[in-house]
Amino acid sequence: MTTLAEEVVRTFGSPSLMIDLDRVDRNIARLQAACEAAGLANRPHIKTHKSPDLARRQREAGARGLTCQTLGEAEVMAQAGLTDILISYNLLGADKLGRLTGLLRRTALTVSSDHPAVVVGLAEAAQAAGRVLDVVVECDTGRGRAGVATPGEAVALARLIADAPSLRFAGVLLYPPEDGTAATQAFLDAAQEGLRGEGLAAGIVSTGGTPNLRHLGEVRGATEHRSGTSIFNDRMMVACGAATLDDCALEVVTTVVSRATPTRGVLDAGSKTLTADPGGGLDGYGLIREYPQARIHKLAEEHGFLDLSGVAAGPEVGTVVRVVPNHVCVVVNMADRLVATRGGRIVGEIPVAARGRR
Amino acid sequence: MTTLAEEVVRTFGSPSLMIDLDRVDRNIARLQAACEAAGLANRPHIKTHKSPDLARRQREAGARGLTCQTLGEAEVMAQAGLTDILISYNLLGADKLGRLTGLLRRTALTVSSDHPAVVVGLAEAAQAAGRVLDVVVECDTGRGRAGVATPGEAVALARLIADAPSLRFAGVLLYPPEDGTAATQAFLDAAQEGLRGEGLAAGIVSTGGTPNLRHLGEVRGATEHRSGTSIFNDRMMVACGAATLDDCALEVVTTVVSRATPTRGVLDAGSKTLTADPGGGLDGYGLIREYPQARIHKLAEEHGFLDLSGVAAGPEVGTVVRVVPNHVCVVVNMADRLVATRGGRIVGEIPVAARGRR
Repeated sequence: MTTLAEEVVRTFGSPSLMIDLDRVDRNIARLQAACEAAGLANRPHIKTHKSPDLARRQREAGARGLTCQTLGEAEVMAQAGLTDILISYNLLGADKLGRLTGLLRRTALTVSSDHPAVVVGLAEAAQAAGRVLDVVVECDTGRGRAGVATPGEAVALARLIADAPSLRFAGVLLYPPEDGTAATQAFLDAAQEGLRGEGLAAGIVSTGGTPNLRHLGEVRGATEHRSGTSIFNDRMMVACGAATLDDCALEVVTTVVSRATPTRGVLDAGSKTLTADPGGGLDGYGLIREYPQARIHKLAEEHGFLDLSGVAAGPEVGTVVRVVPNHVCVVVNMADRLVATRGGRIVGEIPVAARGRR
Repeated sequence: MTTLAEEVVRTFGSPSLMIDLDRVDRNIARLQAACEAAGLANRPHIKTHKSPDLARRQREAGARGLTCQTLGEAEVMAQAGLTDILISYNLLGADKLGRLTGLLRRTALTVSSDHPAVVVGLAEAAQAAGRVLDVVVECDTGRGRAGVATPGEAVALARLIADAPSLRFAGVLLYPPEDGTAATQAFLDAAQEGLRGEGLAAGIVSTGGTPNLRHLGEVRGATEHRSGTSIFNDRMMVACGAATLDDCALEVVTTVVSRATPTRGVLDAGSKTLTADPGGGLDGYGLIREYPQARIHKLAEEHGFLDLSGVAAGPEVGTVVRVVPNHVCVVVNMADRLVATRGGRIVGEIPVAARGRR
């Protein structure tokens, strides 16, 4: 009796990344339904899977467009014929702006910005392409990441965008803190009022985040949502209540390669597979489906060290197990392909086509 | 006046990994000299660079052979014509053993093992190739990673190897703890005595680790040393005293893409570039050469968040900076190529040829 994981290892080697397409389809449908119920367009973030094949599934399920975090991701998606792409990232420098010009000649894009220097570059790139580029203003409503810090700066940047002949002010990009609906609403309302005073309107009001799906629709005036992780889910999403373990569609298939003592073991998945991402303070670097009491307590590059003291009968050397990773987006980025399964059978492989592209 | 880092970004995009070949050559020469002074063969670990080009430089400088951590690394090195390869990893399963047979038909190899089940598989793979495979016994002398736990187990496993017609017992693989010379010596002496009792001898006694270079030659009976990180060095090696910042030959070239406030900034190098590797408790995720007081205090996937409160005049949006990473081996593994420089000029690119191969 060979398990599916063993079959994956036999065919594709160990470690491999395996996805369950039934779960993927269910996760895609659930996100789409949630957006529709909230009256929002669905613009999934493809940084999680970096795959045109999976992006196409999301579009076919009803997604309005796609979100990319890098220019390279957008190039790969556009090359595959996917349209309506938002790049939620400040693009800067001759290399990126030259490539942006090339991409704009082939497809319509929306790009975000939080700084006048970025707007200047975007205007030049769009002018060189002979196209008008839609630009949204990224706003920081409390996370302390990218984004303008005040509604006044948002309005000033929108003015600058609107005044550039090759750009069009398209709206605002938000990434609300998980407990930050009120702060986000206050920022957005003030920005909207300022925009009206300038004769401008935010056609797009984009919110984001898979954990924020529980607050979907709470920001009044939002028009769309960006969720990446929900297509696969991971331990972090389980920990924050955004998913159950049964919703986790990607598993790292890995082999027990050493058992020095009854309480110690080693997987062939280390930091070059699982990554050192602590998942915001989770215990260990992944959950072993077959041995949930085992702890992956430490990683070397090609070794995942197991504490089996809580396990009655630990796995033998050679045992193949499935690990739900802490943070699926960075784990996918380590691989060149995903092994696709459905109904307990291998049905193909999906290239992580945009990996390594920026 | 364009800096070298700006030139790299213009030509190869941001972020990029840049190496200084003068420093690389100096680091290679220093390791070679240290091994020769200690009377040890030099068997550098290529997991750090995953590049046949750089492995060839190490061989030309005098290295006896190479160490690989994955079968895929060994395949790539052998394909490039490099010989005398040690795979310091338990190889298991039909996929790996079938590939090992194929590799053995082309080149001589040494492989490590710490378990009877692994020995059985290795024997079958060697028999299928019609070759005799050299096997070393991996011993755990205190790190609690892979390796047999006692000298007695080492001797028993050596016996098993020696009794397999397609295998040859070649010696022992050690990875001494950094303060563990005495424990390692005691383990080794007991193992050697046991081996003599069996009429066996450890031709290879291999020690490892770049931090352990300070103890080079202290383990009596050692014949060779495996060091990976010393070819590039990193913040971890500086922190443990194995290198200075001037020895760090690889830098992540990255652009400041956002400056929300006077004390905050964002790099376009996040966890998909620098990795979340904490470097054993270092402050932040890298050292910015131009702004050593800045802290890369948090990472998103494509963002490195800067705390600039300790910096008098922070970098403008668009500024290109160089980051010495915490752990260079995992950072190289994120990239498909290294930009090679010498004397302040770009001289080529080096593919990270074994990335993604296992």
